[in-house]
Amino acid sequence: MGRPRTPLLDRARITTTALELVDEQGEFSVPQIARRLGVQTGSVYHHVDGRDGIVELMRERICEAIDSATLDAGPWDAAVSAWAHSYRAAFAAHPRVIPLLMTSPVRAPKVLEQYERAVGLLLTAGFAVADVMPLITGLENLVLGSALDLAAPETMWELREETPTPQLARALAAVGAGRADAAFDAALEGLIGHGRTLLARTTP
Amino acid sequence: MGRPRTPLLDRARITTTALELVDEQGEFSVPQIARRLGVQTGSVYHHVDGRDGIVELMRERICEAIDSATLDAGPWDAAVSAWAHSYRAAFAAHPRVIPLLMTSPVRAPKVLEQYERAVGLLLTAGFAVADVMPLITGLENLVLGSALDLAAPETMWELREETPTPQLARALAAVGAGRADAAFDAALEGLIGHGRTLLARTTP
Repeated sequence: MGRPRTPLLDRARITTTALELVDEQGEFSVPQIARRLGVQTGSVYHHVDGRDGIVELMRERICEAIDSATLDAGPWDAAVSAWAHSYRAAFAAHPRVIPLLMTSPVRAPKVLEQYERAVGLLLTAGFAVADVMPLITGLENLVLGSALDLAAPETMWELREETPTPQLARALAAVGAGRADAAFDAALEGLIGHGRTLLARTTP
Repeated sequence: MGRPRTPLLDRARITTTALELVDEQGEFSVPQIARRLGVQTGSVYHHVDGRDGIVELMRERICEAIDSATLDAGPWDAAVSAWAHSYRAAFAAHPRVIPLLMTSPVRAPKVLEQYERAVGLLLTAGFAVADVMPLITGLENLVLGSALDLAAPETMWELREETPTPQLARALAAVGAGRADAAFDAALEGLIGHGRTLLARTTP
């Protein structure tokens, strides 16, 4: 289980290299990291807790870019909205890492602490404890789906004469640029509105 | 630009192989498809419109599994909810293809037709034309984020003694199994609620 014995610099370089690989090819391997850094594969394993440890280092790196101070500034709806925007921006910088992180358990201490603060925010606001994780996870699904959408091409629908789609054409013309932001804001407003409804039921 | 000149069977085999590769490794290449099928790379190109054509074949294949008849039945909110559930299930079977499809323009005729129907549903329901794409895209962000979440491990947060997160522990215990579904339903209800609000403003 080799705990890291070396300076942070080395783990940082391994993390940076793993992220570069995932950005380029959607995946990484420890031998690939070693090759890029010009070291033996075994040396990489001296610095990290295996492949899973590298995944957690990437998670920690990306989550450092989320402004978690948003979670302390009050009322819950403004805080959640600010957190969601910052969360989306952090992952939009590395869209291809999203599937990797979403399908691997969260172990990074700093990331667990950020969840603790998000849960605390909603409990303090008066949400029923059973409503908290569905709201946070629903928000994350939206945030990460939207982060992927930010990496989409400007023209996402290529309409074709041989497939007439006049209503789609009208709807696309009506929204124009800022399509991804308008979608995120609409869905986020919906989720926060749902939260308000739940809260009104919980605290009569 | 070689238009397909061969029976559907061959394009179907290319699509199946590309999907297998993406399911396994998050990516595919035309030479890899050729190797798996035991043919020359050039032969693959005879059947499809290049790499982008294969991406569109994968999109078409996955979207065939969406029950688009949901878009024709009943009030818009029930229709959107049924479509979203079917859409999520189709992509949950191939989570690793999601980033690839979300970052490549939609050209597949059958998929464009499905968008046309979704837009038509919302226009008929009375939505302002500028509200339609943000709602559909917000729904897709949620659907695809949630499809990735369905591929997450049962225990997504591995709490650690050395990082006390008592509120997170309580919130996780309160939701239990069905976490991903509860999150999707909460966010979907929020989005549909937002739609109702928009509609009430549009049709006074």
